[in-house]
Amino acid sequence: MAIGVTTPKHLLAIDGIRLGVAAAGIRYADRSDLVLVEIAEGAECAAVFTKNAFCAAPVIVCRQHLSISMPRFLVINSGNANAGLGEAGLQASQDCCAAVADLGGCATEQVLPFSTGVIGENFPTQILVDGLPAAQSDLDTNNWLPAAQAIMTTDTVAKGISEQVNIDGHTITITGIAKGSGMIRPDMATMLAYIATDANVSNDVLKNCLHQAVDNSFNRITVDGDTSTNDACLLIATGKSANAPITDIDSVEAEIFITAVEKVSKHLSESIIRDAEGVTRLMTIVVEQGLDTAECDDVAFTVAHSPLVKTALFAGDPNWGRILAAVGRAGVPDLDVEKIQIFLDDVCIVHNGGRDAAYTEEAGEAVMQQEMLTVTIQLGRGDVCTRVQTSDLSYDYVKINAEYRS
Amino acid sequence: MAIGVTTPKHLLAIDGIRLGVAAAGIRYADRSDLVLVEIAEGAECAAVFTKNAFCAAPVIVCRQHLSISMPRFLVINSGNANAGLGEAGLQASQDCCAAVADLGGCATEQVLPFSTGVIGENFPTQILVDGLPAAQSDLDTNNWLPAAQAIMTTDTVAKGISEQVNIDGHTITITGIAKGSGMIRPDMATMLAYIATDANVSNDVLKNCLHQAVDNSFNRITVDGDTSTNDACLLIATGKSANAPITDIDSVEAEIFITAVEKVSKHLSESIIRDAEGVTRLMTIVVEQGLDTAECDDVAFTVAHSPLVKTALFAGDPNWGRILAAVGRAGVPDLDVEKIQIFLDDVCIVHNGGRDAAYTEEAGEAVMQQEMLTVTIQLGRGDVCTRVQTSDLSYDYVKINAEYRS
Repeated sequence: MAIGVTTPKHLLAIDGIRLGVAAAGIRYADRSDLVLVEIAEGAECAAVFTKNAFCAAPVIVCRQHLSISMPRFLVINSGNANAGLGEAGLQASQDCCAAVADLGGCATEQVLPFSTGVIGENFPTQILVDGLPAAQSDLDTNNWLPAAQAIMTTDTVAKGISEQVNIDGHTITITGIAKGSGMIRPDMATMLAYIATDANVSNDVLKNCLHQAVDNSFNRITVDGDTSTNDACLLIATGKSANAPITDIDSVEAEIFITAVEKVSKHLSESIIRDAEGVTRLMTIVVEQGLDTAECDDVAFTVAHSPLVKTALFAGDPNWGRILAAVGRAGVPDLDVEKIQIFLDDVCIVHNGGRDAAYTEEAGEAVMQQEMLTVTIQLGRGDVCTRVQTSDLSYDYVKINAEYRS
Repeated sequence: MAIGVTTPKHLLAIDGIRLGVAAAGIRYADRSDLVLVEIAEGAECAAVFTKNAFCAAPVIVCRQHLSISMPRFLVINSGNANAGLGEAGLQASQDCCAAVADLGGCATEQVLPFSTGVIGENFPTQILVDGLPAAQSDLDTNNWLPAAQAIMTTDTVAKGISEQVNIDGHTITITGIAKGSGMIRPDMATMLAYIATDANVSNDVLKNCLHQAVDNSFNRITVDGDTSTNDACLLIATGKSANAPITDIDSVEAEIFITAVEKVSKHLSESIIRDAEGVTRLMTIVVEQGLDTAECDDVAFTVAHSPLVKTALFAGDPNWGRILAAVGRAGVPDLDVEKIQIFLDDVCIVHNGGRDAAYTEEAGEAVMQQEMLTVTIQLGRGDVCTRVQTSDLSYDYVKINAEYRS
């Protein structure tokens, strides 16, 4: 069960964006699995994609199409990732785009395809194409929540949020939705996230904004260390608001806008980790006093990915020796263990590299039994700090991933 | 349950080595947990230890003592790792060595201490010291098997093997024991392994031999990617055999000897992975056609550590897209995915980076449902090959590690 996150009650419409969903029957019966997003002409778009060398066909097609023009339509399906299929997968993605272009009256390269689901299974192009008219006739500005539901796979709650800020005397709305629960160790963005705004923003500012937001949100969570082949995050600005165009990244307006987008992306990434497969407890790992971000991240992700730390977290067991062992194998050069402090929330467990004299098992247990806790690791060698959030390794994680295809 | 490995029926004595065990009550009730090993004067010894920056107190003391002299005694306990205790841990290890030196009539630095068990709990020095007389009075050349049993923690079978080879007209005997089941991603050696021989070998040859054997055995297995703080592997040569001293690493005699030691260490490392915590299935990952060992290992260990691959292995599910995704995120620079082939045993699943046209789900399932299988990944960019063995991620792995301290 997801921790402290529920399906959003209300998501605000974005002027210039309409969404339609359909139950095409790509993999699941009796649920929506296809989303069509129509974007008004003149919108700007920025995107980040997975760094996995085996990126899925839709990711390749998205990159090609974005290099040619701004999108007028997104076509998104759940149930099949269209990954690992070679030439056939590329053809499938292109065929889907062509079918949308036909329906929508635009060029094929103005359609961006996205897929999420099982990797390596033949892609049912015709089934998706047959579902398009129903999605098209469903197009509506108020369909953000149904869209968030249609892109779910092992997610247990739909994820989304809306924010409003005042820029230049105008109310700007930002709405974002995302999906993701397993195969989560984003290396650009999470599985799929779509954020749209009616703000008037230049493409340069939009790109900068998206990179900063993703770095501080989706790139800071990990469920299982498995970077997906399909990760994609889009930020679309329709420019329908009457605000003066935001073109200077250093302006006050840009700062307000970026802060708001970052708030949306942080909410979405937090929703994903809170809905991690089989989650029963969450751990935030803060690594302080490092020489640089790289070594802080090495320590944070090594702790976050340790199966022994994750099973101790599941058990609510302050078996902090496993945290210490993970820090020790993170590969930080010339690490002086005698300078290291480790805390569970406010409880000092390791002082100068050894068990803190005042530490008691009871104090550690009180922290570890919480639903959410923070491990702070001070390296004692610099002033850089990073933060990563992870979930525990439970019976249900194994169950979900052993049975996902059955 | 361990796969295809059982407690050895008979382990051969090594002239010059006596072992004694006792139930000191360090953590467990009603079982042996203390081993004393007496080594005849004149023996040579080589050792490798964990590369974890947080190495346990006994590892630090072992390194100090070995830099001063060859050992006359080993003192080994299970139930408490004596790790993460700072100065108090070092003192505990030294006190144990001093107590053994008193009993055995040797210098403190001629005693090597080893501990395995829970990290970060206060070390019960007095309980161990109180158990020493019982272990001493038990000293016998035929106690290899009881010793292998006394060092077990979450192991379900005792691990050991004996080999005999003819060198220079003399029968040389090699006996090895080991323990290890979880926190296994050896980075020098596994948790604890002791190999002894009566061969007459120079220290240089012995060190070379140990490094080669460890690189090709213990360093090629991983259960959970968690490198232990206590990893140690010892190779002792008592020189009691009448063979002419082996002093030339390039001699025929050295080759015979090294091959035999490698056979022993491979058996021990194979026993460990076959007894991995919660194991139900084993996967050997062969990475071929790489540019160098480092990139082949990156791919092999990324696949071996992927929770998604490991849960699919548990399910016996040929969800090979997860293997492909792991290969893609291994960080190999400029990887051309279109040159990649992947096989499950002899079944080609990925051909030129995409699903093989002839692949059927039935063929993949037949392989994945086996107790042991091999995944071969051909990178198509060189001629280097590496091999790693790993276990699956089962409910029992979670159970064992969530409940280990309770």
